[in-house]
Amino acid sequence: MPLSEREKMLSNQPYYPADPELVQARREVRVLLGRFNTSSPLDIDMRHTLLKELLGAVGEEVWIEPPFYCDYGTNIYLGSRVYFNFNCVILDCNRVEIGSNCKFGPGVHLYTAYHPLEPTERASGVEGAASIRIGENVWIGGGAIVGPGVEIGADTVIGAGSVVTRDLPARVVAVGNPCRVIREL
Amino acid sequence: MPLSEREKMLSNQPYYPADPELVQARREVRVLLGRFNTSSPLDIDMRHTLLKELLGAVGEEVWIEPPFYCDYGTNIYLGSRVYFNFNCVILDCNRVEIGSNCKFGPGVHLYTAYHPLEPTERASGVEGAASIRIGENVWIGGGAIVGPGVEIGADTVIGAGSVVTRDLPARVVAVGNPCRVIREL
Amino acid sequence: MPLSEREKMLSNQPYYPADPELVQARREVRVLLGRFNTSSPLDIDMRHTLLKELLGAVGEEVWIEPPFYCDYGTNIYLGSRVYFNFNCVILDCNRVEIGSNCKFGPGVHLYTAYHPLEPTERASGVEGAASIRIGENVWIGGGAIVGPGVEIGADTVIGAGSVVTRDLPARVVAVGNPCRVIREL
Repeated sequence: MPLSEREKMLSNQPYYPADPELVQARREVRVLLGRFNTSSPLDIDMRHTLLKELLGAVGEEVWIEPPFYCDYGTNIYLGSRVYFNFNCVILDCNRVEIGSNCKFGPGVHLYTAYHPLEPTERASGVEGAASIRIGENVWIGGGAIVGPGVEIGADTVIGAGSVVTRDLPARVVAVGNPCRVIREL
Repeated sequence: MPLSEREKMLSNQPYYPADPELVQARREVRVLLGRFNTSSPLDIDMRHTLLKELLGAVGEEVWIEPPFYCDYGTNIYLGSRVYFNFNCVILDCNRVEIGSNCKFGPGVHLYTAYHPLEPTERASGVEGAASIRIGENVWIGGGAIVGPGVEIGADTVIGAGSVVTRDLPARVVAVGNPCRVIREL
Repeated sequence: MPLSEREKMLSNQPYYPADPELVQARREVRVLLGRFNTSSPLDIDMRHTLLKELLGAVGEEVWIEPPFYCDYGTNIYLGSRVYFNFNCVILDCNRVEIGSNCKFGPGVHLYTAYHPLEPTERASGVEGAASIRIGENVWIGGGAIVGPGVEIGADTVIGAGSVVTRDLPARVVAVGNPCRVIREL
Protein backbone atom coordinates (compact mmCIF):
# COMPACT_ATOMS: atom_id res chain seq x y z
CA MET A 1 0.00 0.00 0.00
CA PRO A 2 1.47 3.37 -0.97
CA LEU A 3 2.32 5.93 1.70
CA SER A 4 -0.14 8.77 2.29
CA GLU A 5 1.14 12.32 1.78
CA ARG A 6 1.19 12.72 5.56
CA GLU A 7 3.31 9.60 5.94
CA LYS A 8 5.74 10.81 3.27
CA MET A 9 5.92 14.22 5.00
CA LEU A 10 6.72 12.66 8.37
CA SER A 11 9.40 10.39 6.91
CA ASN A 12 11.16 13.24 5.02
CA GLN A 13 10.19 12.01 1.57
CA PRO A 14 8.96 14.38 -1.16
CA TYR A 15 5.25 15.05 -0.61
CA TYR A 16 2.45 17.35 -1.73
CA PRO A 17 1.18 19.76 0.96
CA ALA A 18 -1.82 20.49 -1.30
CA ASP A 19 -3.10 17.01 -0.37
CA PRO A 20 -6.71 17.48 0.86
CA GLU A 21 -6.14 15.67 4.17
CA LEU A 22 -3.15 17.92 4.97
CA VAL A 23 -4.95 21.10 3.86
CA GLN A 24 -7.85 20.22 6.17
CA ALA A 25 -5.50 19.47 9.10
CA ARG A 26 -3.78 22.84 8.71
CA ARG A 27 -7.10 24.70 8.56
CA GLU A 28 -8.34 23.10 11.75
CA VAL A 29 -5.09 24.03 13.51
CA ARG A 30 -5.47 27.65 12.36
CA VAL A 31 -8.91 27.78 13.98
CA LEU A 32 -7.38 26.50 17.22
CA LEU A 33 -4.44 28.93 16.93
CA GLY A 34 -6.94 31.76 16.47
CA ARG A 35 -8.61 30.76 19.74
CA PHE A 36 -5.25 30.54 21.53
CA ASN A 37 -4.00 33.85 20.12
CA THR A 38 -7.13 35.75 21.14
CA SER A 39 -7.57 34.06 24.54
CA SER A 40 -7.50 36.22 27.66
CA PRO A 41 -4.07 36.69 29.29
CA LEU A 42 -5.90 36.18 32.60
CA ASP A 43 -7.40 32.79 31.70
CA ILE A 44 -4.35 30.60 32.29
CA ASP A 45 -6.36 27.38 32.45
CA MET A 46 -7.90 28.01 29.05
CA ARG A 47 -4.49 28.59 27.55
CA HIS A 48 -3.10 25.35 28.94
CA THR A 49 -6.16 23.45 27.73
CA LEU A 50 -5.76 24.90 24.22
CA LEU A 51 -2.03 24.11 24.14
CA LYS A 52 -2.70 20.49 25.11
CA GLU A 53 -5.26 20.27 22.32
CA LEU A 54 -2.90 21.94 19.85
CA LEU A 55 0.48 20.28 20.43
CA GLY A 56 1.79 16.70 20.33
CA ALA A 57 3.14 16.90 23.88
CA VAL A 58 3.21 19.66 26.48
CA GLY A 59 5.25 19.29 29.69
CA GLU A 60 4.49 21.02 32.97
CA GLU A 61 4.59 24.78 33.30
CA VAL A 62 5.04 25.36 29.56
CA TRP A 63 4.32 28.96 28.57
CA ILE A 64 3.81 30.32 25.05
CA GLU A 65 3.13 34.03 24.67
CA PRO A 66 0.57 34.64 21.95
CA PRO A 67 0.61 35.19 19.10
CA PHE A 68 2.09 31.83 18.16
CA TYR A 69 1.93 30.16 14.75
CA CYS A 70 2.49 26.59 13.57
CA ASP A 71 1.48 24.27 10.73
CA TYR A 72 0.10 21.14 12.40
CA GLY A 73 0.87 21.44 16.11
CA THR A 74 0.67 17.68 16.58
CA ASN A 75 4.31 17.29 15.53
CA ILE A 76 5.60 19.60 18.32
CA TYR A 77 6.80 17.86 21.51
CA LEU A 78 7.69 20.13 24.40
CA GLY A 79 9.35 19.17 27.70
CA SER A 80 8.59 20.93 30.97
CA ARG A 81 9.05 24.64 31.65
CA VAL A 82 9.61 25.46 27.96
CA TYR A 83 9.04 29.18 27.31
CA PHE A 84 8.28 30.86 23.98
CA ASN A 85 8.09 34.65 23.89
CA PHE A 86 5.81 36.66 21.51
CA ASN A 87 5.43 35.88 17.82
CA CYS A 88 7.30 32.57 17.50
CA VAL A 89 6.68 30.38 14.44
CA ILE A 90 7.16 26.61 14.16
CA LEU A 91 6.70 25.00 10.75
CA ASP A 92 6.21 21.51 12.13
CA CYS A 93 5.76 19.47 8.97
CA ASN A 94 8.06 17.00 10.66
CA ARG A 95 8.83 16.34 14.36
CA VAL A 96 10.08 19.22 16.48
CA GLU A 97 11.36 17.96 19.86
CA ILE A 98 12.26 20.53 22.49
CA GLY A 99 13.78 19.55 25.84
CA SER A 100 12.78 20.83 29.26
CA ASN A 101 13.80 24.32 30.42
CA CYS A 102 14.36 25.64 26.87
CA LYS A 103 13.81 29.39 26.42
CA PHE A 104 12.93 31.07 23.12
CA GLY A 105 13.09 34.83 22.63
CA PRO A 106 10.46 36.75 20.62
CA GLY A 107 10.10 35.99 16.94
CA VAL A 108 12.14 32.77 16.92
CA HIS A 109 11.32 30.64 13.86
CA LEU A 110 11.86 26.86 13.62
CA TYR A 111 11.46 25.44 10.10
CA THR A 112 11.27 21.74 9.32
CA ALA A 113 9.82 22.63 5.89
CA TYR A 114 11.85 23.17 2.74
CA HIS A 115 11.29 23.50 -1.00
CA PRO A 116 13.43 21.88 -3.71
CA LEU A 117 16.22 24.12 -5.03
CA GLU A 118 15.72 22.84 -8.58
CA PRO A 119 13.28 25.34 -10.17
CA THR A 120 11.02 22.95 -12.12
CA GLU A 121 10.71 20.56 -9.21
CA ARG A 122 9.93 23.48 -6.85
CA ALA A 123 7.23 24.86 -9.16
CA SER A 124 5.51 21.45 -9.11
CA GLY A 125 4.47 22.06 -5.50
CA VAL A 126 6.42 19.17 -4.02
CA GLU A 127 8.06 19.83 -0.64
CA GLY A 128 10.20 18.17 2.03
CA ALA A 129 10.39 18.32 5.83
CA ALA A 130 13.22 17.30 8.16
CA SER A 131 12.91 17.03 11.94
CA ILE A 132 14.44 19.47 14.46
CA ARG A 133 15.72 18.38 17.88
CA ILE A 134 16.71 20.80 20.63
CA GLY A 135 18.22 19.47 23.89
CA GLU A 136 17.36 20.55 27.43
CA ASN A 137 18.05 24.01 28.81
CA VAL A 138 18.87 25.61 25.44
CA TRP A 139 18.35 29.39 25.11
CA ILE A 140 17.62 30.63 21.61
CA GLY A 141 17.80 34.41 21.36
CA GLY A 142 15.01 36.47 19.78
CA GLY A 143 14.67 36.58 16.00
CA ALA A 144 16.85 33.49 15.50
CA ILE A 145 15.95 30.97 12.79
CA VAL A 146 16.59 27.21 12.96
CA GLY A 147 16.44 25.31 9.68
CA PRO A 148 15.34 21.79 8.70
CA GLY A 149 17.20 18.81 10.09
CA VAL A 150 19.10 20.76 12.75
CA GLU A 151 19.97 19.28 16.15
CA ILE A 152 21.12 21.52 19.00
CA GLY A 153 22.79 20.01 22.08
CA ALA A 154 21.75 20.64 25.69
CA ASP A 155 22.67 23.84 27.57
CA THR A 156 23.70 25.67 24.37
CA VAL A 157 23.00 29.40 23.84
CA ILE A 158 22.19 30.81 20.38
CA GLY A 159 22.57 34.56 19.89
CA ALA A 160 19.66 36.77 18.87
CA GLY A 161 19.17 37.01 15.11
CA SER A 162 21.26 33.92 14.34
CA VAL A 163 20.49 31.67 11.37
CA VAL A 164 21.20 28.05 12.33
CA THR A 165 21.61 25.78 9.31
CA ARG A 166 23.86 23.07 10.83
CA ASP A 167 23.92 21.02 14.02
CA LEU A 168 25.37 22.63 17.13
CA PRO A 169 26.94 20.69 20.02
CA ALA A 170 25.98 20.88 23.69
CA ARG A 171 27.30 23.62 26.03
CA VAL A 172 28.45 26.22 23.49
CA VAL A 173 27.59 29.80 22.64
CA ALA A 174 26.93 30.24 18.93
CA VAL A 175 26.00 33.41 17.03
CA GLY A 176 25.66 34.93 13.57
CA ASN A 177 24.34 34.36 10.09
CA PRO A 178 25.36 31.63 9.46
CA CYS A 179 25.51 30.64 13.12
CA ARG A 180 28.97 29.60 14.36
CA VAL A 181 30.31 28.50 17.73
CA ILE A 182 32.22 31.33 19.44
CA ARG A 183 32.95 29.69 22.81
CA GLU A 184 32.39 26.64 24.99
CA LEU A 185 30.60 26.90 28.31
CA MET B 1 0.29 71.48 -12.25
CA PRO B 2 2.44 70.18 -9.40
CA LEU B 3 2.54 66.48 -8.57
CA SER B 4 0.47 65.22 -5.63
CA GLU B 5 2.33 63.53 -2.78
CA ARG B 6 1.00 60.18 -4.02
CA GLU B 7 2.35 60.87 -7.51
CA LYS B 8 5.75 61.81 -6.08
CA MET B 9 5.74 58.66 -3.95
CA LEU B 10 4.97 56.44 -6.92
CA SER B 11 7.68 58.08 -9.07
CA ASN B 12 10.40 57.73 -6.37
CA GLN B 13 10.65 61.45 -5.68
CA PRO B 14 10.88 62.87 -2.13
CA TYR B 15 7.37 63.06 -0.67
CA TYR B 16 5.55 63.60 2.60
CA PRO B 17 3.71 60.51 3.92
CA ALA B 18 1.93 62.81 6.42
CA ASP B 19 -0.09 64.10 3.44
CA PRO B 20 -3.79 63.81 4.42
CA GLU B 21 -4.78 61.82 1.33
CA LEU B 22 -2.04 59.25 2.00
CA VAL B 23 -2.82 59.07 5.73
CA GLN B 24 -6.45 58.37 4.90
CA ALA B 25 -5.53 55.70 2.33
CA ARG B 26 -3.33 53.89 4.86
CA ARG B 27 -6.05 53.99 7.51
CA GLU B 28 -8.61 52.45 5.18
CA VAL B 29 -6.18 49.68 4.26
CA ARG B 30 -5.57 48.93 7.96
CA VAL B 31 -9.32 48.45 8.42
CA LEU B 32 -9.33 45.99 5.52
CA LEU B 33 -6.19 44.24 6.83
CA GLY B 34 -7.91 43.89 10.20
CA ARG B 35 -10.80 42.13 8.49
CA PHE B 36 -8.45 39.87 6.53
CA ASN B 37 -6.31 39.05 9.58
CA THR B 38 -9.29 38.11 11.72
CA SER B 39 -11.22 36.26 9.00
CA SER B 40 -12.04 32.58 9.52
CA PRO B 41 -9.46 30.09 8.20
CA LEU B 42 -12.45 28.10 6.92
CA ASP B 43 -13.97 30.92 4.85
CA ILE B 44 -11.70 30.71 1.82
CA ASP B 45 -14.05 32.70 -0.41
CA MET B 46 -14.08 35.62 2.03
CA ARG B 47 -10.31 35.66 2.11
CA HIS B 48 -10.01 35.76 -1.68
CA THR B 49 -12.62 38.51 -1.85
CA LEU B 50 -10.73 40.57 0.73
CA LEU B 51 -7.39 40.05 -1.05
CA LYS B 52 -8.87 41.23 -4.34
CA GLU B 53 -10.21 44.33 -2.59
CA LEU B 54 -6.88 44.91 -0.84
CA LEU B 55 -4.23 44.36 -3.54
CA GLY B 56 -3.49 45.86 -6.96
CA ALA B 57 -3.56 42.47 -8.67
CA VAL B 58 -4.11 38.92 -7.42
CA GLY B 59 -3.50 35.92 -9.70
CA GLU B 60 -5.21 32.56 -9.36
CA GLU B 61 -4.68 30.38 -6.30
CA VAL B 62 -2.80 33.07 -4.38
CA TRP B 63 -2.58 32.30 -0.66
CA ILE B 64 -1.53 34.66 2.11
CA GLU B 65 -1.48 33.30 5.67
CA PRO B 66 -2.73 35.93 8.10
CA PRO B 67 -1.52 38.00 9.75
CA PHE B 68 -0.27 40.06 6.81
CA TYR B 69 0.63 43.75 6.85
CA CYS B 70 1.09 46.35 4.12
CA ASP B 71 0.91 50.12 3.64
CA TYR B 72 -1.42 50.67 0.66
CA GLY B 73 -2.07 47.24 -0.85
CA THR B 74 -2.96 48.78 -4.21
CA ASN B 75 0.72 48.86 -5.20
CA ILE B 76 1.16 45.09 -4.79
CA TYR B 77 0.83 43.00 -7.97
CA LEU B 78 0.85 39.22 -7.53
CA GLY B 79 0.99 36.54 -10.23
CA SER B 80 -0.70 33.16 -9.84
CA ARG B 81 -0.01 30.63 -7.08
CA VAL B 82 2.00 33.13 -5.02
CA TYR B 83 2.26 31.97 -1.40
CA PHE B 84 3.05 34.09 1.68
CA ASN B 85 3.44 32.32 5.01
CA PHE B 86 2.53 33.90 8.43
CA ASN B 87 3.46 37.43 9.42
CA CYS B 88 4.83 38.84 6.15
CA VAL B 89 5.11 42.63 5.74
CA ILE B 90 5.14 44.61 2.47
CA LEU B 91 5.79 48.35 2.67
CA ASP B 92 4.33 49.09 -0.75
CA CYS B 93 4.83 52.84 -1.04
CA ASN B 94 5.95 52.04 -4.56
CA ARG B 95 5.16 49.12 -6.90
CA VAL B 96 5.90 45.58 -5.71
CA GLU B 97 5.62 43.08 -8.59
CA ILE B 98 5.80 39.40 -7.76
CA GLY B 99 5.81 36.72 -10.45
CA SER B 100 3.78 33.51 -10.48
CA ASN B 101 4.76 30.56 -8.28
CA CYS B 102 6.79 32.67 -5.84
CA LYS B 103 6.98 31.33 -2.28
CA PHE B 104 7.66 33.46 0.79
CA GLY B 105 8.50 31.95 4.18
CA PRO B 106 7.13 33.35 7.45
CA GLY B 107 8.09 36.86 8.46
CA VAL B 108 9.52 37.94 5.09
CA HIS B 109 9.63 41.75 4.79
CA LEU B 110 9.68 43.68 1.48
CA TYR B 111 10.46 47.41 1.88
CA THR B 112 10.06 49.94 -0.90
CA ALA B 113 10.15 52.71 1.72
CA TYR B 114 13.29 54.50 2.88
CA HIS B 115 14.23 57.58 4.89
CA PRO B 116 16.99 60.07 4.00
CA LEU B 117 20.36 59.30 5.62
CA GLU B 118 21.08 63.02 6.15
CA PRO B 119 19.78 63.72 9.70
CA THR B 120 18.11 67.13 9.16
CA GLU B 121 16.39 65.97 5.99
CA ARG B 122 15.20 62.79 7.74
CA ALA B 123 13.80 64.72 10.71
CA SER B 124 11.72 66.83 8.28
CA GLY B 125 9.49 63.82 7.60
CA VAL B 126 10.30 63.53 3.90
CA GLU B 127 10.62 59.96 2.57
CA GLY B 128 11.34 58.02 -0.62
CA ALA B 129 10.09 54.76 -2.12
CA ALA B 130 11.67 52.57 -4.82
CA SER B 131 9.91 49.67 -6.53
CA ILE B 132 10.69 45.98 -5.98
CA ARG B 133 10.42 43.35 -8.70
CA ILE B 134 10.61 39.61 -8.10
CA GLY B 135 10.60 37.18 -11.05
CA GLU B 136 8.62 33.96 -11.33
CA ASN B 137 9.20 30.91 -9.17
CA VAL B 138 11.45 32.68 -6.64
CA TRP B 139 11.63 31.21 -3.12
CA ILE B 140 12.46 33.68 -0.37
CA GLY B 141 13.24 31.95 2.92
CA GLY B 142 11.57 32.98 6.17
CA GLY B 143 12.71 36.12 7.97
CA ALA B 144 14.47 37.50 4.87
CA ILE B 145 14.31 41.24 4.13
CA VAL B 146 14.31 42.79 0.63
CA GLY B 147 15.16 46.48 0.41
CA PRO B 148 14.03 49.34 -1.85
CA GLY B 149 14.78 49.17 -5.56
CA VAL B 150 15.79 45.51 -5.57
CA GLU B 151 15.09 43.19 -8.51
CA ILE B 152 15.38 39.42 -8.14
CA GLY B 153 15.55 37.19 -11.22
CA ALA B 154 13.31 34.18 -11.88
CA ASP B 155 13.90 30.80 -10.19
CA THR B 156 16.30 32.25 -7.60
CA VAL B 157 16.37 31.02 -3.99
CA ILE B 158 17.13 33.40 -1.09
CA GLY B 159 18.18 31.81 2.21
CA ALA B 160 16.21 32.32 5.43
CA GLY B 161 17.23 35.45 7.34
CA SER B 162 18.99 37.07 4.38
CA VAL B 163 19.10 40.85 3.94
CA VAL B 164 18.89 41.67 0.22
CA THR B 165 20.09 45.19 -0.59
CA ARG B 166 21.19 44.67 -4.23
CA ASP B 167 19.75 43.05 -7.33
CA LEU B 168 20.12 39.29 -7.69
CA PRO B 169 20.19 37.45 -11.03
CA ALA B 170 17.96 34.58 -12.11
CA ARG B 171 18.68 30.94 -11.15
CA VAL B 172 21.04 31.43 -8.22
CA VAL B 173 21.07 30.58 -4.53
CA ALA B 174 21.95 33.62 -2.41
CA VAL B 175 22.25 33.85 1.38
CA GLY B 176 23.47 36.04 4.22
CA ASN B 177 23.51 39.56 5.61
CA PRO B 178 24.29 41.16 3.24
CA CYS B 179 22.90 38.60 0.79
CA ARG B 180 25.46 37.16 -1.67
CA VAL B 181 25.24 34.56 -4.41
CA ILE B 182 26.73 31.23 -3.29
CA ARG B 183 25.89 29.07 -6.31
CA GLU B 184 24.13 28.92 -9.67
CA LEU B 185 21.26 26.54 -10.32
CA MET C 1 15.11 45.94 53.98
CA PRO C 2 15.83 43.63 51.03
CA LEU C 3 15.09 44.78 47.50
CA SER C 4 11.92 43.54 45.82
CA GLU C 5 12.29 41.51 42.62
CA ARG C 6 11.07 44.56 40.70
CA GLU C 7 13.74 46.73 42.33
CA LYS C 8 16.43 44.18 41.50
CA MET C 9 15.18 43.99 37.91
CA LEU C 10 15.31 47.76 37.49
CA SER C 11 18.81 48.02 38.95
CA ASN C 12 20.23 45.24 36.73
CA GLN C 13 20.73 42.74 39.54
CA PRO C 14 19.79 39.06 39.19
CA TYR C 15 16.05 38.69 39.81
CA TYR C 16 13.22 36.19 39.44
CA PRO C 17 10.60 37.13 36.81
CA ALA C 18 8.35 34.40 38.28
CA ASP C 19 7.82 36.75 41.25
CA PRO C 20 4.02 37.05 41.72
CA GLU C 21 4.01 40.87 41.60
CA LEU C 22 5.90 40.86 38.30
CA VAL C 23 3.75 38.08 36.82
CA GLN C 24 0.64 40.07 37.67
CA ALA C 25 2.08 43.28 36.18
CA ARG C 26 2.88 41.53 32.90
CA ARG C 27 -0.61 40.00 32.70
CA GLU C 28 -2.28 43.36 33.15
CA VAL C 29 -0.09 44.85 30.42
CA ARG C 30 -1.04 42.04 28.05
CA VAL C 31 -4.71 42.86 28.58
CA LEU C 32 -3.97 46.49 27.69
CA LEU C 33 -1.85 45.44 24.69
CA GLY C 34 -4.74 43.29 23.50
CA ARG C 35 -6.99 46.35 23.58
CA PHE C 36 -4.40 48.47 21.75
CA ASN C 37 -3.70 45.79 19.14
CA THR C 38 -7.38 45.28 18.34
CA SER C 39 -8.37 48.97 18.47
CA SER C 40 -9.83 50.58 15.36
CA PRO C 41 -7.32 52.23 12.99
CA LEU C 42 -9.85 55.07 12.73
CA ASP C 43 -10.06 55.77 16.47
CA ILE C 44 -6.87 57.79 16.88
CA ASP C 45 -7.91 59.26 20.23
CA MET C 46 -8.44 55.81 21.73
CA ARG C 47 -5.01 54.71 20.56
CA HIS C 48 -3.30 57.71 22.14
CA THR C 49 -5.23 57.18 25.36
CA LEU C 50 -4.20 53.52 25.48
CA LEU C 51 -0.54 54.36 24.76
CA LYS C 52 -0.48 56.89 27.61
CA GLU C 53 -1.93 54.27 29.91
CA LEU C 54 0.54 51.64 28.67
CA LEU C 55 3.91 53.43 28.53
CA GLY C 56 6.08 55.31 31.03
CA ALA C 57 6.19 58.44 28.87
CA VAL C 58 4.72 59.31 25.46
CA GLY C 59 5.72 62.53 23.65
CA GLU C 60 3.56 64.36 21.14
CA GLU C 61 2.56 62.79 17.84
CA VAL C 62 3.95 59.36 18.77
CA TRP C 63 2.65 56.63 16.49
CA ILE C 64 2.87 52.88 17.04
CA GLU C 65 1.39 50.61 14.39
CA PRO C 66 -0.31 47.61 15.99
CA PRO C 67 0.48 44.90 16.69
CA PHE C 68 3.01 45.97 19.31
CA TYR C 69 4.35 43.85 22.18
CA CYS C 70 6.16 44.71 25.42
CA ASP C 71 6.70 43.28 28.91
CA TYR C 72 5.76 46.08 31.33
CA GLY C 73 5.24 49.21 29.23
CA THR C 74 5.94 51.45 32.21
CA ASN C 75 9.69 51.26 31.59
CA ILE C 76 9.40 52.68 28.04
CA TYR C 77 10.01 56.44 27.69
CA LEU C 78 9.33 57.92 24.25
CA GLY C 79 10.11 61.46 23.06
CA SER C 80 7.95 63.27 20.50
CA ARG C 81 7.19 62.07 16.98
CA VAL C 82 8.59 58.58 17.64
CA TYR C 83 7.29 56.11 15.05
CA PHE C 84 7.15 52.30 15.34
CA ASN C 85 6.00 50.31 12.32
CA PHE C 86 4.10 46.97 12.52
CA ASN C 87 5.07 44.14 14.86
CA CYS C 88 7.76 45.77 17.01
CA VAL C 89 8.71 44.15 20.34
CA ILE C 90 10.24 45.85 23.39
CA LEU C 91 11.28 43.66 26.30
CA ASP C 92 11.34 46.52 28.81
CA CYS C 93 12.43 44.74 31.98
CA ASN C 94 14.68 47.75 32.45
CA ARG C 95 14.43 51.36 31.16
CA VAL C 96 14.15 51.93 27.41
CA GLU C 97 14.63 55.62 26.57
CA ILE C 98 13.99 56.72 23.01
CA GLY C 99 14.63 60.29 21.83
CA SER C 100 12.33 62.43 19.73
CA ASN C 101 11.98 61.82 15.98
CA CYS C 102 13.21 58.22 16.14
CA LYS C 103 11.87 55.89 13.45
CA PHE C 104 11.61 52.11 13.78
CA GLY C 105 10.89 49.85 10.80
CA PRO C 106 8.60 46.81 11.05
CA GLY C 107 9.59 43.98 13.37
CA VAL C 108 12.33 45.85 15.26
CA HIS C 109 13.07 44.16 18.60
CA LEU C 110 14.64 45.93 21.62
CA TYR C 111 15.71 43.55 24.42
CA THR C 112 16.77 44.69 27.88
CA ALA C 113 16.24 41.11 29.11
CA TYR C 114 18.91 38.45 29.20
CA HIS C 115 19.45 35.00 30.71
CA PRO C 116 22.66 33.77 32.37
CA LEU C 117 25.02 31.92 30.03
CA GLU C 118 26.00 29.46 32.76
CA PRO C 119 23.58 26.51 32.29
CA THR C 120 22.73 25.71 35.92
CA GLU C 121 22.19 29.35 36.78
CA ARG C 122 19.98 29.80 33.68
CA ALA C 123 17.86 26.75 34.54
CA SER C 124 17.18 28.26 37.99
CA GLY C 125 14.97 30.91 36.36
CA VAL C 126 17.07 33.89 37.41
CA GLU C 127 17.35 36.68 34.82
CA GLY C 128 18.95 40.08 34.26
CA ALA C 129 17.92 43.28 32.48
CA ALA C 130 20.08 46.18 31.28
CA SER C 131 18.71 49.52 30.06
CA ILE C 132 18.70 50.68 26.41
CA ARG C 133 19.13 54.32 25.40
CA ILE C 134 18.55 55.62 21.87
CA GLY C 135 19.31 59.27 21.04
CA GLU C 136 17.14 61.64 18.99
CA ASN C 137 16.43 61.20 15.29
CA VAL C 138 17.79 57.64 15.07
CA TRP C 139 16.42 55.42 12.29
CA ILE C 140 16.48 51.69 12.99
CA GLY C 141 15.70 49.62 9.91
CA GLY C 142 13.10 46.86 9.93
CA GLY C 143 13.90 43.53 11.52
CA ALA C 144 16.88 44.93 13.47
CA ILE C 145 17.53 43.73 17.03
CA VAL C 146 19.07 45.84 19.81
CA GLY C 147 20.44 43.96 22.82
CA PRO C 148 20.66 44.71 26.55
CA GLY C 149 22.73 47.66 27.74
CA VAL C 150 23.14 49.22 24.29
CA GLU C 151 23.28 53.00 23.76
CA ILE C 152 22.90 54.48 20.28
CA GLY C 153 23.91 58.10 19.61
CA ALA C 154 21.68 60.73 17.98
CA ASP C 155 21.09 60.86 14.20
CA THR C 156 22.52 57.37 13.63
CA VAL C 157 21.04 54.97 11.05
CA ILE C 158 20.97 51.18 11.62
CA GLY C 159 20.48 48.97 8.58
CA ALA C 160 17.54 46.58 8.29
CA GLY C 161 18.18 43.18 9.84
CA SER C 162 21.15 44.35 11.93
CA VAL C 163 21.95 42.80 15.32
CA VAL C 164 23.26 45.54 17.64
CA THR C 165 25.15 44.12 20.62
CA ARG C 166 27.47 47.09 21.39
CA ASP C 167 27.10 50.86 21.73
CA LEU C 168 27.05 52.93 18.55
CA PRO C 169 28.13 56.59 18.35
CA ALA C 170 26.09 59.49 17.01
CA ARG C 171 25.88 60.32 13.28
CA VAL C 172 26.98 57.02 11.75
CA VAL C 173 25.52 54.39 9.47
CA ALA C 174 25.92 50.88 10.92
CA VAL C 175 24.80 47.56 9.44
CA GLY C 176 25.12 43.80 9.75
CA ASN C 177 25.14 40.90 12.17
CA PRO C 178 26.99 41.86 14.31
CA CYS C 179 26.27 45.52 13.55
CA ARG C 180 29.34 47.58 12.59
CA VAL C 181 29.84 51.22 11.56
CA ILE C 182 30.30 51.54 7.79
CA ARG C 183 30.39 55.35 7.46
CA GLU C 184 30.01 58.64 9.28
CA LEU C 185 27.33 61.13 8.38
